[in-house]
Amino acid sequence: MSDIPIEFESWKKRISTELARELALRGESFGAIHRLGLDASSRISRFAVGGKMVRGGLVCVGTLLARADVPESAFRAAAAVELLHSALLVHDDIMDRDALRRGTPSIHRQYAEMGRLDEVNEPDHIGESLAVCLGDVAFFVAFEILSSLDAPDHLRNHIVGLAARELQFVGVAQMADVYRGALRFDLDSNSGGTGSDDALRVYLYKTGRYTFSLPLMIGSLLAAADDGLVPSIRELGESMGILYQIKDDEIGLFGDSEETGKPTGSDIREGKKTVFITELLSRASDADLSRFDSIFGNQEATGDDIAWVLELIERSGTRGAIENLGAELGVAASRSIDSIGSGGRNGIRLIAEMLTYNSSRIR
Amino acid sequence: MSDIPIEFESWKKRISTELARELALRGESFGAIHRLGLDASSRISRFAVGGKMVRGGLVCVGTLLARADVPESAFRAAAAVELLHSALLVHDDIMDRDALRRGTPSIHRQYAEMGRLDEVNEPDHIGESLAVCLGDVAFFVAFEILSSLDAPDHLRNHIVGLAARELQFVGVAQMADVYRGALRFDLDSNSGGTGSDDALRVYLYKTGRYTFSLPLMIGSLLAAADDGLVPSIRELGESMGILYQIKDDEIGLFGDSEETGKPTGSDIREGKKTVFITELLSRASDADLSRFDSIFGNQEATGDDIAWVLELIERSGTRGAIENLGAELGVAASRSIDSIGSGGRNGIRLIAEMLTYNSSRIR
Repeated sequence: MSDIPIEFESWKKRISTELARELALRGESFGAIHRLGLDASSRISRFAVGGKMVRGGLVCVGTLLARADVPESAFRAAAAVELLHSALLVHDDIMDRDALRRGTPSIHRQYAEMGRLDEVNEPDHIGESLAVCLGDVAFFVAFEILSSLDAPDHLRNHIVGLAARELQFVGVAQMADVYRGALRFDLDSNSGGTGSDDALRVYLYKTGRYTFSLPLMIGSLLAAADDGLVPSIRELGESMGILYQIKDDEIGLFGDSEETGKPTGSDIREGKKTVFITELLSRASDADLSRFDSIFGNQEATGDDIAWVLELIERSGTRGAIENLGAELGVAASRSIDSIGSGGRNGIRLIAEMLTYNSSRIR
Repeated sequence: MSDIPIEFESWKKRISTELARELALRGESFGAIHRLGLDASSRISRFAVGGKMVRGGLVCVGTLLARADVPESAFRAAAAVELLHSALLVHDDIMDRDALRRGTPSIHRQYAEMGRLDEVNEPDHIGESLAVCLGDVAFFVAFEILSSLDAPDHLRNHIVGLAARELQFVGVAQMADVYRGALRFDLDSNSGGTGSDDALRVYLYKTGRYTFSLPLMIGSLLAAADDGLVPSIRELGESMGILYQIKDDEIGLFGDSEETGKPTGSDIREGKKTVFITELLSRASDADLSRFDSIFGNQEATGDDIAWVLELIERSGTRGAIENLGAELGVAASRSIDSIGSGGRNGIRLIAEMLTYNSSRIR
């Protein structure tokens, strides 16, 4: 295990400590309202510390773009960022009907089970309702933390405003994602622009700006980075984020099942509308599309069906086009790194190490 | 209409203008992500300006506790407070399965209808999912506004932190409310404390501190009130809020249908667990409770049944006990007003006028 970036492991510990401390602090006042309050603070704490903490880690990396060590305040900021992300996941799991998250039942399933034990009416609905509330509470805890970071007042305000703004975009991108998932394709691509544009915009906001740019920017602001650096840091996050997401999609399609942890073709059987799929739709012939339609999103699709779709993605030039896009993003990222200067190269090395370490999906 | 407090009407206009402006500002960037983004900004704008704006009005009143006129910044803060409240209502309506809000379909129903027109899979689930997202987006817009109020940095931070903290409590109180509504009574009262204590705690956090104290405190902070005033203002809000909620419950039970806008007994037929009901449960005999159980929450209950419950609430001493509590709260409010000083008496007059003007429910 000598290739593990030691820093990141120690950061994760520090971030977990901050998370647990912030939520334990609130347990008493929450518990004074109702027994569910104390339960809520420990439930979201357990959930949040179970994450991979890529975003929290990126807050730490962000500080290193502008200074030589990670300041104390970064771990508390990272805890807030992880809590914001946990809140989004709690809500997303309701929308996606995900029963499992991080190896345990998702929060709405946990609450539904509690409700069943207490013989409430409509335990599934109560489970979802309590999970909506818990997500909301976690958002508010995170904003309270950001508003009270150990930093000058104007920086705290800047950070709160930045997080609030980017989360608006994430919320809208999530709406787009939910709706795209539920729409028939033709309706979606008729909505202006191509389906690929829509998919890439969602990647830009959900992965690029939110997962990468926002934590890096928060970290660099905490490290009192030169204002001139901030746009380059945002751009770096955007390119890296989209590139990461495209690679993740590619591995999901073409990676072997050992790499993805899922059977080959499961993204196709689940009907996951990645940019590879939206791009394919604009390139394939009607005859190919007709067979594709019968396979995509079909849990009964055979190994031959899956192999045919993968071959179609190659043959139609889809994979090549997206690999070209990936190369362009790599060039853009490299340009941003150059303009960040000396901290940039170190930062990108850390990001690369962190992502390699977290080689499976980053949610 | 000469008894309408003219100030409040003009405040509402100013707050509505700020709300519409803030959301229109975001329409373009939201729309650049997906067509649902532009739709979201106008949808939440319409929803928010349709409210009674009691909380926004209380921000304005809060400024008058410390200065002679309402500063510009108060209207923008009030818009943020109204937006936070709209977001909570959007989420609450999902939990309560409310199909109507402010005279039009609730947000999740609006989205479900849109989904049905677009022939999406599971339109009801998509409607709820998009409404969860829209509520989240509205929270974030509100926090961005609060972080950028025209006020010194330390005050903005203080206001963001205060709002974030009180909203955590509201979220926990909402969890309690949801769960209490779904639990059988005996389980709930076995959970420590009496059912009335639980009900009053929910009133304290959801109506007292959130609806009354928070907006008043935000206003007074914006008006740069003496720090010594802030605890008195919080206490004033707590007493007024619980008192208001108790009166609202009492009108819901004993008011005539013209006053409540609902048929007599509808709170009983709906099984609304107000503090009158939780108090009654600790006072009534087993025989009375047994008949009560067959009526409460029963949509088929007759006029005689309802009359019997109302008589039981009187006969058991429940109504008297709660009226005594109301009187104590009135004394506490009056003490808080005295310690606020000259602005206090003016403030309470404005609050009273505003509540009279908004004589039906304040949600």
